[in-house]
Amino acid sequence: MSSVIKVNLPEQSYEIAIAPGSLDQLGEQMSGVKLGQKVLLVSNPMIFKHYGERAIASLKKAGFEVASYNLPAGERYKTLNSIQKLYDIALENRLERSSTMVALGGGVIGDMVGFAAATWLRGINVVQVPTSLLAMVDSAIGGKTGVNHPHGKNLIGAFHQPRFVLIDPEVLKTLPAREFRAGMAEVIKYGVIWDTELFDQLEASKHLEQLRYVKAELIQNILTRSCQAKADVVSKDEKEAGLRAILNYGHTIGHAVESLTEYRMFKHGEAVGIGMVAAGQIAVELGLWQAADTERQNALIKKAGLPTKLPANIEIAAIIDALQLDKKVKSGKVRFVLPTQIGVVKVTDEVPPDTISQVLASMR
Amino acid sequence: MSSVIKVNLPEQSYEIAIAPGSLDQLGEQMSGVKLGQKVLLVSNPMIFKHYGERAIASLKKAGFEVASYNLPAGERYKTLNSIQKLYDIALENRLERSSTMVALGGGVIGDMVGFAAATWLRGINVVQVPTSLLAMVDSAIGGKTGVNHPHGKNLIGAFHQPRFVLIDPEVLKTLPAREFRAGMAEVIKYGVIWDTELFDQLEASKHLEQLRYVKAELIQNILTRSCQAKADVVSKDEKEAGLRAILNYGHTIGHAVESLTEYRMFKHGEAVGIGMVAAGQIAVELGLWQAADTERQNALIKKAGLPTKLPANIEIAAIIDALQLDKKVKSGKVRFVLPTQIGVVKVTDEVPPDTISQVLASMR
Repeated sequence: MSSVIKVNLPEQSYEIAIAPGSLDQLGEQMSGVKLGQKVLLVSNPMIFKHYGERAIASLKKAGFEVASYNLPAGERYKTLNSIQKLYDIALENRLERSSTMVALGGGVIGDMVGFAAATWLRGINVVQVPTSLLAMVDSAIGGKTGVNHPHGKNLIGAFHQPRFVLIDPEVLKTLPAREFRAGMAEVIKYGVIWDTELFDQLEASKHLEQLRYVKAELIQNILTRSCQAKADVVSKDEKEAGLRAILNYGHTIGHAVESLTEYRMFKHGEAVGIGMVAAGQIAVELGLWQAADTERQNALIKKAGLPTKLPANIEIAAIIDALQLDKKVKSGKVRFVLPTQIGVVKVTDEVPPDTISQVLASMR
Repeated sequence: MSSVIKVNLPEQSYEIAIAPGSLDQLGEQMSGVKLGQKVLLVSNPMIFKHYGERAIASLKKAGFEVASYNLPAGERYKTLNSIQKLYDIALENRLERSSTMVALGGGVIGDMVGFAAATWLRGINVVQVPTSLLAMVDSAIGGKTGVNHPHGKNLIGAFHQPRFVLIDPEVLKTLPAREFRAGMAEVIKYGVIWDTELFDQLEASKHLEQLRYVKAELIQNILTRSCQAKADVVSKDEKEAGLRAILNYGHTIGHAVESLTEYRMFKHGEAVGIGMVAAGQIAVELGLWQAADTERQNALIKKAGLPTKLPANIEIAAIIDALQLDKKVKSGKVRFVLPTQIGVVKVTDEVPPDTISQVLASMR
C-alpha cells in the first residue's frame, strides 16, 4: 500500500511518497533525489524520542552524514530566535549549498526548518517528514515556510519548496488525539473546496477520530486524496497569485480567532473549523451556497470532534478589526473563500462587514 | 543621457534605468511598474540627509503613500536585529503583499532591505536605488539579499529580485572617495571577466578616482557597461547554478581577507582588488593566463587607488583555512574563478593549495 504524488513546478518538481512504515526507507528514498552528503535532521524532543533514531539509522544506512538537533516543541517557539539557533547549528556542522535539512515533526518544525533552509546560504535543500496529520496534508507540501512575529502569525517567511516529502501514516498513532482532530479540519477543507469524493468518503465514515488506529487503507486513501488536492492547487499556482488562495478556506476568520485568543485557546485546525462554519454561513447569507450543504459540512466538522461555535470571550468587533491584519488583505479589503457547492469555491473581497458580524453573532 | 538595461528572468523581469538627476523621477518611474500604493523607504541617516527628501517628494508626487525609516550605517549593523527592526516598521505601517520597500543607500542597505522584503509576508516588492558605486554596478542588481552571521558574511539570505533599479550617477558626487575607489574594483572585474571594451576604456582613462566629478558621459558609460555585464550574467543564471559564479572573480581570496581582518581593515571592493591580483597570479602559475595581461589588470587596480598587497598581519595558513568557510565550497573543494584572457574566465575547483600559498606569499 503506497502512493506517490508529484508536485509539478516550473523550477523544481518533487514527490510526496505515502506508505505505512516508510520512515525506515527515508534514507533510501532520499538517495533517489540529487542531494549532497550532509544532512541536518531537526525535530523536537518528543518526536525525536519516538522516531529520531529510526530516521537517522535509515539516513546513515543510505550513506548520508547526519547531524541532528531538537528545537523546543510548541508554537511559541516558532520565532526568529529558533531560526538563529538553526543557523548556528548549520554553521557548526558546516552545511553547504548542496546539504539538506530534514524536518521531522509537525507544522511548527516543518515551517521553521523550511525557513532556515530557505535562508541559509540563500537556500539549501529541505526534506519534509511530517508527523502530524495537519503537516502531512497541508503544511509540509507547497513550500510555505516561516515563523511568527510577536504581533502576527507567519508574518515572516519565504516560499521554499521541499525536495521530497515522506509521509508514514503509522506515525499518526502516537499523535495526541486533539492534534489528530485538528488536522482533520484541513482534510474536510479539501472535501469542500476541491474533492467531492473525499467529502463523501468522510461523510460515509462512522468515526473520524479513530481512523488512524483501525483503518489503514482508509487513512492511506484520505491522506492521498488530501495531498493530491494540495499538490494540484500548488502546481497550478505556486506563489499564491490566484488559485492557491482557495486553500485559505476557513482561514480568514480562523486566523483572527487564533490571534485574538493568543494561539492558546485553539489549535490551528480547530480555528479553521470555526472559520469554515463562518465562511459557509456567509456564503449562504450571500445566496452563494445552499443551506443544506452548509449543514452537511458542519455535521462533518462536528463528527471530527471540532468546535463549531465562537467562544463568548471574543468580541465580534475585535474579529472584524483583526481581519485587517491578515496577510491576504489588499488595499484594506478582506478576502474570503466561499463555497458555491461542495467541491467548488470562489474567492471574493466583496463581503459586507455587516454580514460578517451577523454570521459571527449567530455562532455564539 | 540615459540608459535602460533589461534583466530578463523567467518569473519576473525588470529594468535598470541609469540617468543623471533621475532621483527626482523615482516616483514617476515606479509608476510604470505594477506596484501597490504603500511604500516604505529605508535608508541610513547620512544618505537620507542628502537624498531622502527628494526621493520622498518624487514618490508622493506620483501618488504613493510613503513612510520612511533609517537604519544605522555600516556593515556591523547588517544583522538579523536590523531586519527585525524593519519587520516591526513594516507591521506598524501595515505593509501588504502589494507594498514596496525602497532601498536608498549602498550595498548594506540594499542587501538588508532586499532580505526584509524577501521575507515579510513571504515576499513583498523591493525597488533598489543604489547610492554607492559598488551597489550601482553590483549588489543592487541580481537579487542576492541577506545579512551577516556573527561568524560569516552573507550566510543568511535569499534570492529576491528587485522590481526596478534606479541609478542616478550624480549621487556619486557625495560618496566618500574611498567608497568610490572600492566600487571601482567591481567595475574592473567586469572588464576582466566579461567586457574587453570596458577594460580598454578604463585603461585609456587617465584618472579613475576623479571620473565622477568631471566625466559625466564616461561615468554613464562605465555604469551602463557594468550593469549590462551583471544583467547578462544574471539573466542567464539567476540562482548561481553555473555561469553566475564568474561574478565571484576575486571574491574567493577577497572574502577570506575581509573576514580575517574582521571587516575592519578593508572595504569589500578593496579586498576584491587583492583577490583579483591573487586570482590573476594563480591563473598565471597554472599556465592559464599570460603574465602580461595580469600586469595590465594589476596596473588598473593600482590606478584606481586600490591595494594590491597582502597586509603583513594576516597568516597565509589562516587564509587557506578561511577558504573552507566560503559559501561556494562544495564537498570541501574551494572554487576559484580564473582568467584565461581579458574578458574571459573559467571556474575551477582544481587549484592546488600549494599554489595558493605560494601566490599569497609573493604578495607581501
